[in-house]
Amino acid sequence: MSLEPLKERIGAINDLLTTVNLLVWDSRTMMPAGGAAARGRQVATLTRLARDLACDDDMMRRLEVAERDVAVAGVPEIDRAAVRQVRGAVDAHRRIPAELVERRARLQASATQSWIDARARDDFASFEPLLAETIVLARALADALGWSEHPYDALVNLYEPGETLASLRALFGELRPELKRILAGAQARPPARDVLSGDFPPAEQLALSARLAAAIGYDFKHGRIDPTVHPFEISFTRDDVRITTRFKPNHVAQSIFGTLHEAGHGLYEQNVDPSFTRSIFATDLLGLYAVGGTSYGAHESQSRLFENHVGRSAAFWRRRYPDLVTAFPVFASVPLEAFLAAITRVSPGLIRTDADEVTYDFHVMVRVEIEAALLDGSLAARDLPEVWREQVRANLGLEVPNDREGCLQDAHWAAGLVGSFCTYTIGNIMAAQLFETACASSPQIRTALEEGDVGPLSSWLRESVWRHGRRFHRNDLLAQATGSTLKLAPYLRHLSQRYLDPAR
Amino acid sequence: MSLEPLKERIGAINDLLTTVNLLVWDSRTMMPAGGAAARGRQVATLTRLARDLACDDDMMRRLEVAERDVAVAGVPEIDRAAVRQVRGAVDAHRRIPAELVERRARLQASATQSWIDARARDDFASFEPLLAETIVLARALADALGWSEHPYDALVNLYEPGETLASLRALFGELRPELKRILAGAQARPPARDVLSGDFPPAEQLALSARLAAAIGYDFKHGRIDPTVHPFEISFTRDDVRITTRFKPNHVAQSIFGTLHEAGHGLYEQNVDPSFTRSIFATDLLGLYAVGGTSYGAHESQSRLFENHVGRSAAFWRRRYPDLVTAFPVFASVPLEAFLAAITRVSPGLIRTDADEVTYDFHVMVRVEIEAALLDGSLAARDLPEVWREQVRANLGLEVPNDREGCLQDAHWAAGLVGSFCTYTIGNIMAAQLFETACASSPQIRTALEEGDVGPLSSWLRESVWRHGRRFHRNDLLAQATGSTLKLAPYLRHLSQRYLDPAR
Repeated sequence: MSLEPLKERIGAINDLLTTVNLLVWDSRTMMPAGGAAARGRQVATLTRLARDLACDDDMMRRLEVAERDVAVAGVPEIDRAAVRQVRGAVDAHRRIPAELVERRARLQASATQSWIDARARDDFASFEPLLAETIVLARALADALGWSEHPYDALVNLYEPGETLASLRALFGELRPELKRILAGAQARPPARDVLSGDFPPAEQLALSARLAAAIGYDFKHGRIDPTVHPFEISFTRDDVRITTRFKPNHVAQSIFGTLHEAGHGLYEQNVDPSFTRSIFATDLLGLYAVGGTSYGAHESQSRLFENHVGRSAAFWRRRYPDLVTAFPVFASVPLEAFLAAITRVSPGLIRTDADEVTYDFHVMVRVEIEAALLDGSLAARDLPEVWREQVRANLGLEVPNDREGCLQDAHWAAGLVGSFCTYTIGNIMAAQLFETACASSPQIRTALEEGDVGPLSSWLRESVWRHGRRFHRNDLLAQATGSTLKLAPYLRHLSQRYLDPAR
Repeated sequence: MSLEPLKERIGAINDLLTTVNLLVWDSRTMMPAGGAAARGRQVATLTRLARDLACDDDMMRRLEVAERDVAVAGVPEIDRAAVRQVRGAVDAHRRIPAELVERRARLQASATQSWIDARARDDFASFEPLLAETIVLARALADALGWSEHPYDALVNLYEPGETLASLRALFGELRPELKRILAGAQARPPARDVLSGDFPPAEQLALSARLAAAIGYDFKHGRIDPTVHPFEISFTRDDVRITTRFKPNHVAQSIFGTLHEAGHGLYEQNVDPSFTRSIFATDLLGLYAVGGTSYGAHESQSRLFENHVGRSAAFWRRRYPDLVTAFPVFASVPLEAFLAAITRVSPGLIRTDADEVTYDFHVMVRVEIEAALLDGSLAARDLPEVWREQVRANLGLEVPNDREGCLQDAHWAAGLVGSFCTYTIGNIMAAQLFETACASSPQIRTALEEGDVGPLSSWLRESVWRHGRRFHRNDLLAQATGSTLKLAPYLRHLSQRYLDPAR
C-alpha cells in the first residue's frame, strides 16, 4: 500500500506537533519561571523539525507515490482527500522562504515580550516598531502564499479557509445594523442586579468548573483542567485533551463560562474519529498545529455553542443551579431568574474578552478593518492608537481612555496572528446555525436540554461535526450538517429571542 | 568556527531529548489515563528522530569538519573532549543495527505491561518469555557494541563507563564480608522504637518535602515537586529540573528520604555549568538521554549523599526537627534521639527500594551476578525465581515467599535496563568518598553542617562535581575531586561509624 509512507510521515509530524502542544501546555500551567528560555528553544527545534519533515525531498517522494496511488479507480474518496490536503499544505510551505519562517519565529518571541511590557506601562510607542515589523513579515507571508484581491485574503485562509476580506465585509455589512438594533433593545431592558460578585475561593471555583465541564460531556479520562492566566484548550491527540480556566476570587462568572467555553473546544477534539489519530485529518499541516477542528471558526462554534446556547440558557441552569448553590451557598438566596438575568446582561465595554454576546462582534469588526488597513499599507503602525479610538467610538460608542484598554489589549498580533480575529464572529454565527438545526432536527434534543441533558445534542454534534475532524472544508461540513453554507439568520434569531423577547 | 555545525546539531538533539523527558514527566505526574498509547508513540518518534540526527550523513559531515578543526594546535582541550565524546557515541550508535533499536523499543512497552500484570498476579511464568526475549536483545546489543571478557562489560559501560564484571566482582569481594560484619554489629544494637508510623496526611507530607528540599538548596525557581507512584528526578535543561515524591499516609519516612534523594539528584542537574546547556556535556548521546551527570553512579552518589550522609545525620535533624514538629505535632513528644534511631534502623528485608543503608548493597550484588549469568547463558530465564531465592538466602539470609517480593520486584529488566543495578552501589561508595573528602578539605563544611547549613558542602560539591556535568569520566572526576579513583574505605568508615559506634 503506497499510501503508507506518506501516512507514516504525517504521523511523525503529528507526534512532533502534539508534543509541541505539551511543551506549550506545560509552560502555561506547570513550568517554573526559570524554564522559559529553554522552553522556547525546544518549541523552536521541534517546529523546525516538523517543517523539515513536511517539506524535505523524502516527503516529496512519499507524496508523489501517494498521488500516483490514489489516482487509480476504486480508491476511497477519503484517501484522495487526504492526499489533496497534504499536497495543498506542502506546496504552500514550499512557497514560504525558510528565512521568513525563522524571522517570524524570532520576532514572535521579542514582540510578545515587548507587548507585555508595553501593555503593563501603557506605552504603545515602545511596541510600535515590533508591531510594524510584525506587519511587514505578515505581508511578506501573504505575498509568498499569494493573493489576488487583498493580502488579508492569503492570511485569513490560514485560519478560516474560504473567507476573504470581501466576504467578511459583506457579512459584517449585514450583521452590524442588526446588532445595533438588538443592542438598543437589550439596553432598554431593566438593568440586571449584580448577583455574580462575592467571595468565591478559587479551589471551589475549580471544583465547580470540573463539575460543569463533566456535565456537558467533557471526558476527564482523556483530559484534565488546570488554572492558568489566559485560558485555552489544547490536545495531544484526541485521547488527551486538556482545558484550563481562571478565576476572579470576587466574581463567579469568569470561571463558569470560561470553562464551558474551553470544554466546548475540548468536546470537538475528544470526539474526532479515532481512525483520524495522527492523520492529516488531525493535523493542520499548513499552520503546523495538531488540531482536530476544521477551521478556527468551526472550533470556536463549538466553544460558543456550549458557552452561550447551552451555558447561558434557563434550561441548563434549572438543572445545574443546585451545583452552584452547593459550591457557593450564598446563591441559595438568589432566585434563579436573577442569576439568569445577570449572566445575560448586555453592556458595551472596552475589552473584547469581557464582552457580552451582543457586543462581542463589534470588537471583531474593529480589528478586521484595522488588520486589513495595516496589511495593505493604508494604516501605519504608529497611527494605530488613533484609528482604534475612532473605530471603537463608531462601533461601540465608547471613548478609549488608554492603549492598555485599547489597541494593546490582545496578544494576537504580537504572536504573529494577523487575520484570525474574524474567526470569533464566524464561530458565533456557525454556533447558532448548528444549534438551530440540531434543535429543529429532533424534538428530543430540545426536550432533553429542557431536562438538563446535553446527550442528544452531543450525539447530533458528534455525528455532524466532531467526528469529521479536519476532513471537510468548513462550508462543506456546514452544508452537510445544516443544508446551507454559513448563514447569518439563525444567529440573529438567537440574539433577538434572548435579548429582545420580553418574555425572557 | 567549524565546530558550530556540530554544536548546533547536538543542541537540536538535546532539545528533542529534554522534550522526551517532559513527555515522560507528564506521563508520570499529570497525564490522564487515556493518554498512554499516544504518549508512547510520541516518545518513540522523538527518540527515533534524535537517533537519526545523531547518525545521519549530515551529522557525519559535521563531525568530520569538527574533528579537523580541533586537530590544530591551540584549540582548547574542552573542545577536543567534546568532539571525542561525540565521536565515541556516534560510532557506537552506528554499530547498533536500526532493527535492533526498533525491536528493543517495541519489546520494552510489551515487557513492561507484562511485568506489571505478572507482578500483580505473582505469575512469573507469564513474564518469562518476555524476559527471555529482553535478554536475547540485551545480548545482541552487547555483541553489537563489542566486548572482550564478558557481554556484561559492554552493557555496564552504557551506565557506568570504566566498570566491568571483573572490576565489580573485585569490589564486591571486598565489600561483602565488611558489610556482613557491620550488619551483625548493627543488629546487635537495641531495636529502635517505631516512631515513624502514624497518621500523616499527604498534603502536609508534600509541604514538608518541599521545605526539606529547599533546605538542602534545591531551587524551586528552576524546579517543582509533585506526587507520583515511583519517584524520580528529571531535567529539561539545568533551568527546569523537577523532582517527585510519594507518601505512605501511615509512615513519614518514605517521603522525607525519597525527597532528599531526588533533590540530591536535582542539585547535580541544577548546578551544571550554564555554558554546557544543550552541549554534549549535558547530553548522553549514546544512551539518548538529556542528563547532566557523568554516570549513573555519579548521579546516585549525589542523591545518596543528601539522603544518607546529610539526611540521616543528627546534625541535620537538630536543625530541621522543628519543621517536622510543625508539620506533624505528634513529634513534639518524640525525643530527637528516638527519631534518629528510627531513621537509621537496620533490618534485612526482601525489597530493594525499602532497604536500609547497610543491607542495600546485598540487593545489588544479587542482581549483578544474575544479570551476568542471564547474559552469558549460564542462567535461563525460567530458572530465575529459583536462583533468586538462593541468592537472597546467601546474601540476606532470608526466604523469598513469592516472586512478587522476589525476582518480579524491579522494573529495570522489563524496561530493557540490563547492567545498571551496580550503579546504586557505585553511588553509595562514591557518596562516602566525596563526603569524606569534602569534610576533610575544610573544617568549615563540618561546622556549618553541625549548624544545619549545607551551604559550604554544596559549594564544594558544585566546584568539584556538579558544574562539570558530563565533561569528565567518572574516575577522572573522582581523582580531581578526591585524589583517587573509586575507593571503598570511606564508605566502610561511614557505615562503621554510624552503625557500629556505640556512642551514636
